[in-house]
Amino acid sequence: MTDGANSMWGGRFAGGVNAIMEAINASIGFDKRLYAQDIAGSRAHAAMLAAQGILTEADQQAIDAGLTKVKAEIEAGDFPFSPALEDIHMNIEARLRDLIGEPAGRLHTARSRNDQVALDFRLWVREQCDAAITGLEALMRAFLGQAEAGADWVMPGFTHLQTAQPVTWGHHMLAYVEMLARDKSRFEDARRRMNECPLGAAALAGTSFPIDRHATAAALGFDRPTANSLDSVSDRDFALEFLGAASICAMHLSRFAEELVIWSSAQFRFVRLSDAFSTGSSIMPQKKNPDAAELLRAKLGRILGANVALFTVMKGLALTYSKDMQEDKELTFDAADNLMLGLAAMEGMVRDMTANTDALASAAASGFSTATDLADWLVRELNLPFRDAHHVTGSLVKMAEDAGIDLPDLTLEQMQSVHAAITSEVFGVLGVDNSVRSRVSYGGTAPDQVRLHIARWKEVLG
Amino acid sequence: MTDGANSMWGGRFAGGVNAIMEAINASIGFDKRLYAQDIAGSRAHAAMLAAQGILTEADQQAIDAGLTKVKAEIEAGDFPFSPALEDIHMNIEARLRDLIGEPAGRLHTARSRNDQVALDFRLWVREQCDAAITGLEALMRAFLGQAEAGADWVMPGFTHLQTAQPVTWGHHMLAYVEMLARDKSRFEDARRRMNECPLGAAALAGTSFPIDRHATAAALGFDRPTANSLDSVSDRDFALEFLGAASICAMHLSRFAEELVIWSSAQFRFVRLSDAFSTGSSIMPQKKNPDAAELLRAKLGRILGANVALFTVMKGLALTYSKDMQEDKELTFDAADNLMLGLAAMEGMVRDMTANTDALASAAASGFSTATDLADWLVRELNLPFRDAHHVTGSLVKMAEDAGIDLPDLTLEQMQSVHAAITSEVFGVLGVDNSVRSRVSYGGTAPDQVRLHIARWKEVLG
Amino acid sequence: MTDGANSMWGGRFAGGVNAIMEAINASIGFDKRLYAQDIAGSRAHAAMLAAQGILTEADQQAIDAGLTKVKAEIEAGDFPFSPALEDIHMNIEARLRDLIGEPAGRLHTARSRNDQVALDFRLWVREQCDAAITGLEALMRAFLGQAEAGADWVMPGFTHLQTAQPVTWGHHMLAYVEMLARDKSRFEDARRRMNECPLGAAALAGTSFPIDRHATAAALGFDRPTANSLDSVSDRDFALEFLGAASICAMHLSRFAEELVIWSSAQFRFVRLSDAFSTGSSIMPQKKNPDAAELLRAKLGRILGANVALFTVMKGLALTYSKDMQEDKELTFDAADNLMLGLAAMEGMVRDMTANTDALASAAASGFSTATDLADWLVRELNLPFRDAHHVTGSLVKMAEDAGIDLPDLTLEQMQSVHAAITSEVFGVLGVDNSVRSRVSYGGTAPDQVRLHIARWKEVLG
Amino acid sequence: MTDGANSMWGGRFAGGVNAIMEAINASIGFDKRLYAQDIAGSRAHAAMLAAQGILTEADQQAIDAGLTKVKAEIEAGDFPFSPALEDIHMNIEARLRDLIGEPAGRLHTARSRNDQVALDFRLWVREQCDAAITGLEALMRAFLGQAEAGADWVMPGFTHLQTAQPVTWGHHMLAYVEMLARDKSRFEDARRRMNECPLGAAALAGTSFPIDRHATAAALGFDRPTANSLDSVSDRDFALEFLGAASICAMHLSRFAEELVIWSSAQFRFVRLSDAFSTGSSIMPQKKNPDAAELLRAKLGRILGANVALFTVMKGLALTYSKDMQEDKELTFDAADNLMLGLAAMEGMVRDMTANTDALASAAASGFSTATDLADWLVRELNLPFRDAHHVTGSLVKMAEDAGIDLPDLTLEQMQSVHAAITSEVFGVLGVDNSVRSRVSYGGTAPDQVRLHIARWKEVLG
Repeated sequence: MTDGANSMWGGRFAGGVNAIMEAINASIGFDKRLYAQDIAGSRAHAAMLAAQGILTEADQQAIDAGLTKVKAEIEAGDFPFSPALEDIHMNIEARLRDLIGEPAGRLHTARSRNDQVALDFRLWVREQCDAAITGLEALMRAFLGQAEAGADWVMPGFTHLQTAQPVTWGHHMLAYVEMLARDKSRFEDARRRMNECPLGAAALAGTSFPIDRHATAAALGFDRPTANSLDSVSDRDFALEFLGAASICAMHLSRFAEELVIWSSAQFRFVRLSDAFSTGSSIMPQKKNPDAAELLRAKLGRILGANVALFTVMKGLALTYSKDMQEDKELTFDAADNLMLGLAAMEGMVRDMTANTDALASAAASGFSTATDLADWLVRELNLPFRDAHHVTGSLVKMAEDAGIDLPDLTLEQMQSVHAAITSEVFGVLGVDNSVRSRVSYGGTAPDQVRLHIARWKEVLG
Repeated sequence: MTDGANSMWGGRFAGGVNAIMEAINASIGFDKRLYAQDIAGSRAHAAMLAAQGILTEADQQAIDAGLTKVKAEIEAGDFPFSPALEDIHMNIEARLRDLIGEPAGRLHTARSRNDQVALDFRLWVREQCDAAITGLEALMRAFLGQAEAGADWVMPGFTHLQTAQPVTWGHHMLAYVEMLARDKSRFEDARRRMNECPLGAAALAGTSFPIDRHATAAALGFDRPTANSLDSVSDRDFALEFLGAASICAMHLSRFAEELVIWSSAQFRFVRLSDAFSTGSSIMPQKKNPDAAELLRAKLGRILGANVALFTVMKGLALTYSKDMQEDKELTFDAADNLMLGLAAMEGMVRDMTANTDALASAAASGFSTATDLADWLVRELNLPFRDAHHVTGSLVKMAEDAGIDLPDLTLEQMQSVHAAITSEVFGVLGVDNSVRSRVSYGGTAPDQVRLHIARWKEVLG
Repeated sequence: MTDGANSMWGGRFAGGVNAIMEAINASIGFDKRLYAQDIAGSRAHAAMLAAQGILTEADQQAIDAGLTKVKAEIEAGDFPFSPALEDIHMNIEARLRDLIGEPAGRLHTARSRNDQVALDFRLWVREQCDAAITGLEALMRAFLGQAEAGADWVMPGFTHLQTAQPVTWGHHMLAYVEMLARDKSRFEDARRRMNECPLGAAALAGTSFPIDRHATAAALGFDRPTANSLDSVSDRDFALEFLGAASICAMHLSRFAEELVIWSSAQFRFVRLSDAFSTGSSIMPQKKNPDAAELLRAKLGRILGANVALFTVMKGLALTYSKDMQEDKELTFDAADNLMLGLAAMEGMVRDMTANTDALASAAASGFSTATDLADWLVRELNLPFRDAHHVTGSLVKMAEDAGIDLPDLTLEQMQSVHAAITSEVFGVLGVDNSVRSRVSYGGTAPDQVRLHIARWKEVLG
Repeated sequence: MTDGANSMWGGRFAGGVNAIMEAINASIGFDKRLYAQDIAGSRAHAAMLAAQGILTEADQQAIDAGLTKVKAEIEAGDFPFSPALEDIHMNIEARLRDLIGEPAGRLHTARSRNDQVALDFRLWVREQCDAAITGLEALMRAFLGQAEAGADWVMPGFTHLQTAQPVTWGHHMLAYVEMLARDKSRFEDARRRMNECPLGAAALAGTSFPIDRHATAAALGFDRPTANSLDSVSDRDFALEFLGAASICAMHLSRFAEELVIWSSAQFRFVRLSDAFSTGSSIMPQKKNPDAAELLRAKLGRILGANVALFTVMKGLALTYSKDMQEDKELTFDAADNLMLGLAAMEGMVRDMTANTDALASAAASGFSTATDLADWLVRELNLPFRDAHHVTGSLVKMAEDAGIDLPDLTLEQMQSVHAAITSEVFGVLGVDNSVRSRVSYGGTAPDQVRLHIARWKEVLG
């Protein structure tokens, strides 16, 4: 099963690493994506080593210049990536040695691949938190835009996909703003919690070199260094927490995506998606397949799958670093890519979609949707107990249904035949516009409440 | 498929709800666990209604007294739970009507089962956050106790379950303190984020009654009312975030559980678990099965399963409330119960376990575990490049291995035959005690660092 | 952390097992559900021991009579379950000793709790496979009943929830019959694969007693004994495979449940669910909440969660039995209960639901849903290349759309103005009834095809 | 949000599909992997169309030749893949039109992208089943090779990672053969169940062209055509079942991987992995990191994650095709790749690993591991009840433990002091070799049993 000597391990392994092992073991195929983080970390490390007198200024300058060149090569597509060098760290270090010679061999002082990869990956995930926050803010703005346009458009409020009460379009849009704001704060919390620098944990035990971990932490934008070297190289909480926040966010997207799919159906016709985010049939003009919405609905699967995968990988791993943990990256990369794409696509869809206000209003008014308003009026104005008010309302609805008319079309006499104390003031609560205007409790669907919260969110988002 | 008239829906359904429907639909079998939250919410609601003049003082007092009685009945085991009444809300309300008559019918004014269940469940999950935080603090103290006892006990530091470098027992224990502290802060963040009161969202649209949502929020210990009524009855983020934090915590427990299982093996003998947390064989005295550790290792499965389940339930649900969401409770109850049990059992195990310091020390010293110290000395004192120092060290280890001795047993002459500049000072870094003492970088394994962080954590925990 | 001596381990543990350990360790709270399997296994074991001369006939008869009594006690609710005796096996054995004295002590010869629990759980899961198969057959019959009633009712065939082509109600119902038939065959395969008897594996290594494993296997309805004793006590594949089949089945249920929710909306009105499987509003008569459908839609979460949980539990467990595996039961019990309930509820719903044939037909005809038929006619009769036919069709649809009419309402002249070779025969394919009748390819939506497959399935189901 | 006209939809969309939409919507980046399946399906379709007289022979020959050329271009790396053409189907068809002109436009007759992708993906998954079966057979042979070499090597049999009884190395290896054989039969069942051809379902309703679905099914190696066109384009059971079987298989690999990691530790030293499948330290010669084993342990996460992802995607999708289902491919590709790699790597590791028979034997003999044999002897030969025999054995073990000796070192007199009826024959069961030889029950650990099952498996594998 051997295929020649393995140069990397100094002749220790007579066998060599064959193609299968390379395929399963080498990470350069995906961790090259961490090149910028790796170089930033190495620069900060070298600067600190020089400041502490562990490295000469000359060596540090050579390293810094060399790393600048390496980065330029990678970004120009000229870098000779080698699977035999396994990972991004060894690839960069080997290239640095080609470029600057001996000083390259001093860069790895007081460092190990264990704290190096922990740093690189953490920096990458931290950036994804920032990207998610930015994407969420843009999407919140898109929903706010829709909310502002339709703060007083009436539409059906559904429970069980059955019309329950009229609500406003703006109010529905704001529901998503609330969800996304929670998502945003989850990414902020995750970012804050992960913002500790593992560099200096070395292989696992710390180091005897007089390093300054607070300096590298500060240079790389961390709040502080991590406090335990064993934990530093064993920990993947930051990726799990990112994936957890991403999963909840993807769940929110899946809910609006479902609504878009249903609302785009010929039976609902509540919204019209822009051509940019749907596809059609060359022979059926009315057909607008909400492809992007469907794909967004599916993204929860992709991201939750990555979350489950990483939990399963981490389950029951004895401290400290084990190679199992190398599986963390592709999962997280894929989930993050899909989240960012999902946020961008949803933002475009929300911004571009057109509400069919006629269809919304018509659906809002059907089905005796203001029956609750009538019952509440009976309680509020006639002081009926809640359950009695429901009984009276049920009878009035039955009367209207039997007559094939809607509640506001009943005469006062008809109403009084069911409950004598009803007055003509009752008609003030029976239309859908009256209904939504009346729901002025904090966070209620009344246009005034909607505008209040739009203003609040606009202030928050700046 | 019908089985008689269904009283609850006012005669609307000729069919009735048969046994299958009752089995799948009724939640009283599990949501009775929310009785205290439901009663607390009703009390706060009634008090607010009275303060706002929506309810008379007399009615409010009758309701309050009645609810006190209901709670006492439930806690005494005397309450007549009825599946026909479906859920805890209807069971309590029906009993309240039995006890106090007409005023009971006014309690539900400006409220709906939708915001009621959202409130009850949120209160319950909030309590579980508090319980988790308390349990985590106790477990952190248990690990700190172990760390303090063995701040300078040496043991092998593993990567890939291979001895890499000597570390201290205290340092290893502190690694878990770090993990648990992150868990604690995740539950704190989750608690803070969920601490908004959904009561007053009513069915979904808010209400036209002049309620004071800020008052009920304050009365129930919330920071504020929720800001969107549609979101309030649709949201289960708080449960998902709790389950996510619980899953990461359970993953940490699974890692130490795995270590305990391995450390308890006849081959390792690193620790001895107390009889309380292991089982034995009636005929094999040395056999101590680490049952509790194994069960704790498995708990991640249980809790992650609940997490996946709730994500899958919530995927693609159109707003607002859908009955799918009723599946949230049993999952969360089971996960929370298992988490709390897991934290308690782990705390007991950690507190009771006995380190076998001889076995730890002996394992720490084997396998040329201070080779890295030697290499670092060569870099630090002789200014060798890192990769050259590794080459010299490899040769010295080979020399010792061939001679069947350990690194500190090589003579200075033997060492100088490999690299002439080596001085007798090298022996100062070769023993395991010297090794761990030297790793004084921040967060390193040196006993002084361990004691520093023990002191820090003791201050944090008070 | 100790709470008194622990009698069960023969005085080996001075400490005793305290309340936490009992809570985490004892399984009697849930594994008592395996009592019938445990007793059946013990009887078969005792009969075999007697047949092999390892047990006297008298002892075997005493054991058999005693176990009969134990079973009766359990079924009468008179059995004194004791958590101190940990599990169902010890509870039954202890009670047997109370009842028959010394021979009870001989029952456990050539057996261990490890193979005993493996047997009991496997027997239970095997029964669940049978129950699932029965439930699936009933549900297939319910769908067949609907298919038969509406073999030629037209309805829209959706892609992306957009009307694509007309299909028949019967064809749609048969799609689920196909899915459920695959589910059934998966449970059959799983049952067949798990149908090997682990009894006789003893603790893990087999036994030196001259037992006859083929005899106990046959007595318990197994095809053969398992072939490796280590695997026998380590294996939980049968539960995982059951959960996997259950998850796919639950996914199918979730799809039809989603359709029911959408079809029950005021906008679609494709079906009317029976009162037995929906709930209403006391004041809104038209509101029929599809509660059961929503709960069924959610069941995938519950069952998939159990599946993930057991995978996570089993991940990375060294052979053979570890206590982690005790977590298998509650998960599987819950998943199986929910699956059976889901199948029963869906069967009732499907059987009771009423299609609104007018709404279906009207929706089927809208949106130029026979445009594909027109294009196919152009290819088939005029020999146009497929893409050209689409172009002509697109133009004709545009013409109809601009005129505000449907395709069949265009005159032949109008059609010929787009493509001169079109003849009056084209009208034969333009109505929805013509359309569905024309799709006679094997498995197509034509009523004749539907009836063919109904007949096939009725024969299969007997 | 628009970026120019979109040529593909015939001018229907003024907007065009912008970069985000292309990124989220286009599948060519990954579905090009299905090129061979797509071309095979097109060939079979064209041949059938010609045989049915729907296509001329000349057109069919042009298409066949053109597809041959397309395939050659793709395999030579010369094919001009275009994201604007979205997917592999459109890319191939467009290129075919470039190459052969008009006849290319006739290939899509009586076909749709919906049945086309269903076919391509099913063919691909079917191939993966075959690859898994082949890989499993190779791995079974590797385990059989180890079993044959060490049919009578003694080692500890563990429960709870505690030595329970001595077993044989061959027996332990055979346990994995049993697991893998179940895996193999699961892939065989999955393959059989998925082996129905969806081609001819067309968009969703079947077709009015006189196609012969049985012919294309046969030509592509399917057992039969699918029986319902709606199901044919909606079904992804085959991928889910493949992923389920792959997850169970990966779980098995994770268990042996865990054993390898533990067995490779300095404390166990049960096996030595080959250099090809481990990595070392350049300065610590004894350190052999079991990297490949760790990565294999992690693969369950990857594959289970894909399984969860696809379940989540499919949850609650209304029939028939929805774009959500496009997410199926990358997940399944990644899982299949990782499974195949895992099987190959495990096969190499198992084949190359070297058992340390001294360490195994020494561990097997420690810890009074034959206490059970002694107890069984007391039952069998002296007719003691099982529980009494355990009591006597416990006393003898205590006596040996107090004297610091092992069980076989007790004198007959010492034994008789505990139970007078013990004879010298007892010594025949006390050594580990005697112990394992005695466990001759079917599937027991006795070398004879091991050899019996090796022979059986060799016959099965041919």
